[in-house]
Amino acid sequence: MNILLASDAFKDCMSARQVAISLRRGIERIMPETDFQIAPMADGGEGTVESVIDATGGKRIEWIVKDPLMREINSFYGITGDGSTAVIEMAAASGIELLIPGERDPWVTSTFGTGELIKNAMERGCKKLLLGIGGSATNDGGAGMAEALGVKFTCGREISSGPGGGALGDVERIHMEGLDPRIADLDILVACDVSNPLTGPEGASAIYGPQKGADRDMVKKLDHNLEHFAELIRQQLGKEISHVPGAGAAGGLGAGLMAFLGARLMKGFDMIAETVGLEEKIMQADLVITGEGKMDGQTQFGKTPFGVAQLAQKHGKPVIGIAGTLEEGSEVLYQMGFNVILPILEKPSELDFAIRHAGELLKRTGERIARMIRLEL
Amino acid sequence: MNILLASDAFKDCMSARQVAISLRRGIERIMPETDFQIAPMADGGEGTVESVIDATGGKRIEWIVKDPLMREINSFYGITGDGSTAVIEMAAASGIELLIPGERDPWVTSTFGTGELIKNAMERGCKKLLLGIGGSATNDGGAGMAEALGVKFTCGREISSGPGGGALGDVERIHMEGLDPRIADLDILVACDVSNPLTGPEGASAIYGPQKGADRDMVKKLDHNLEHFAELIRQQLGKEISHVPGAGAAGGLGAGLMAFLGARLMKGFDMIAETVGLEEKIMQADLVITGEGKMDGQTQFGKTPFGVAQLAQKHGKPVIGIAGTLEEGSEVLYQMGFNVILPILEKPSELDFAIRHAGELLKRTGERIARMIRLEL
Repeated sequence: MNILLASDAFKDCMSARQVAISLRRGIERIMPETDFQIAPMADGGEGTVESVIDATGGKRIEWIVKDPLMREINSFYGITGDGSTAVIEMAAASGIELLIPGERDPWVTSTFGTGELIKNAMERGCKKLLLGIGGSATNDGGAGMAEALGVKFTCGREISSGPGGGALGDVERIHMEGLDPRIADLDILVACDVSNPLTGPEGASAIYGPQKGADRDMVKKLDHNLEHFAELIRQQLGKEISHVPGAGAAGGLGAGLMAFLGARLMKGFDMIAETVGLEEKIMQADLVITGEGKMDGQTQFGKTPFGVAQLAQKHGKPVIGIAGTLEEGSEVLYQMGFNVILPILEKPSELDFAIRHAGELLKRTGERIARMIRLEL
Repeated sequence: MNILLASDAFKDCMSARQVAISLRRGIERIMPETDFQIAPMADGGEGTVESVIDATGGKRIEWIVKDPLMREINSFYGITGDGSTAVIEMAAASGIELLIPGERDPWVTSTFGTGELIKNAMERGCKKLLLGIGGSATNDGGAGMAEALGVKFTCGREISSGPGGGALGDVERIHMEGLDPRIADLDILVACDVSNPLTGPEGASAIYGPQKGADRDMVKKLDHNLEHFAELIRQQLGKEISHVPGAGAAGGLGAGLMAFLGARLMKGFDMIAETVGLEEKIMQADLVITGEGKMDGQTQFGKTPFGVAQLAQKHGKPVIGIAGTLEEGSEVLYQMGFNVILPILEKPSELDFAIRHAGELLKRTGERIARMIRLEL
């Protein structure tokens, strides 16, 4: 029997690869003759770099960049095993988690550091870039990112380095001449699971501004500034991006990536599935096991296990889901490719206990799966 | 497919029958064509009356008797559906849980109420008695029980009614003439899973006295009194019971039941298995599901699920175990007839949550079992 282990990471607990290996250990104990394929999955959010590194035998690059407040920090990204592709989580350079609550201020925060990571990846010869843009601290329309790659923004004088969402309102001219020429040869895919436009009531400032520290008044001004920025891009670059679905992702970084770098937005799951060759692996499998730390009714909206189950269903392969926390509402998944979903807990316990013992619990869950498969009925 | 549901009760939570019905509901949702047999199990301890009533379509009898301190209380026992057999838990009349901690005193506590229950069962025409003797508050060698059925104990004068473990030391003569004559026609089986002799370092007083409220000095005196009592039984009734394994169960009630009523001691599981026709049901089943609130390494020592699994293994039937709490150490059960043991919890939660939601959790566990069975691999 060929079993494909294609779980997401269990958040704050185990990487996707660790989940797969724990399950494999348990299954192997009971069915040592099993063939395994491992596809560490992710959805473009946290854990994406690790999963792609694990899936391709790649490496992690540590690199010093500017954080959202333009202070130097240690950041990281990944390069696939063949050296061709970089995988970056913008949150590693420009994420909200890098700031303490009192520092969160989308008027000044910048995506400059994300641009520095992209630049470093090109310097290492990468020709393709996978970019996850969840968890941003910024509302700068990607201006900081573009600046780090050579674009200049002026209003007579040059706008201060790392223009935040506030300074965007001052910009009068966009200068593309200095843009790193290697960008032209870089194939950039952006994992984006939201469809917000750049501005307006569903735009970046209105929907995500408050959680980044903006009050009602600032939201209004930030939205106005992004509108102004989009207008400059329209007039001076000849690009209409503000209503493309996803333009408003990550404080308008989605729009900036399209406008300045010619990036393409796609579903995070599709991006990772393509990168790890998920569909080919599913076609070779007799059984697919996927999972996530928590599964519930929301899992049907773009989460990794759902994507895996849908692809497996397309090829008529049975799917077992695994979850540390299985909430009510998950029953709906049984109409969407999942044959059965198994929780891993063995006794009343706190989340902290489950996290500390996840490896053992997953191993024994694997063992139980194998024991059920081997039941002779 | 024929599935036998033969779980024990989940303690403080659901009866054995409720567990079975919840599992059945879940399995039926996925495999509506399944044939079910239900055998509510018990091990002679708490829940035995309820399981036997459920298994035989019997009824529960409420009856007022004396508690361990000779106060009137509402007690109960069961009569099987055919009216032939009574099933009594001694703890319902003479149990430690009937006393608050400060009242626990094996010098005075009596099994008198247990004798009253036996008497009432005979008055209702029962010809057979199943007696569970766990959880006693007493150390009276069954003297109180015997007295309630007409036996008299004297020392020149009559010993006060309901002689406790202390008064046993005063007894000089045992008078059997008044014993209820219906006892001769009563077939008495006692569920006893301990093998303690009546006296000595492994006897009733030394091993169980302290948890019933005896200090070291009282333990010594109680043991001495039981020795004296056994000597009277030897001399005046011509019966040697003090070294029979189980004579020391329930403060020597095991000995008293043998000496005064001619009872036979057997394993609790065997008694219930015979009563509910477990082995015949297993022979007709394709799959056996058993369980208990908690399963661990101790489950191999006479607990219900272990007994069920052993009988199933004898007949080559696969066994699934179900547990609310599955502790480490339970792996050993995989060498003892269990094919797989499944926990029911779905997320980090407290025991109280698990107890309140046990019905739903068991139902969904049944559903998962059916979904795993129906996996086409």
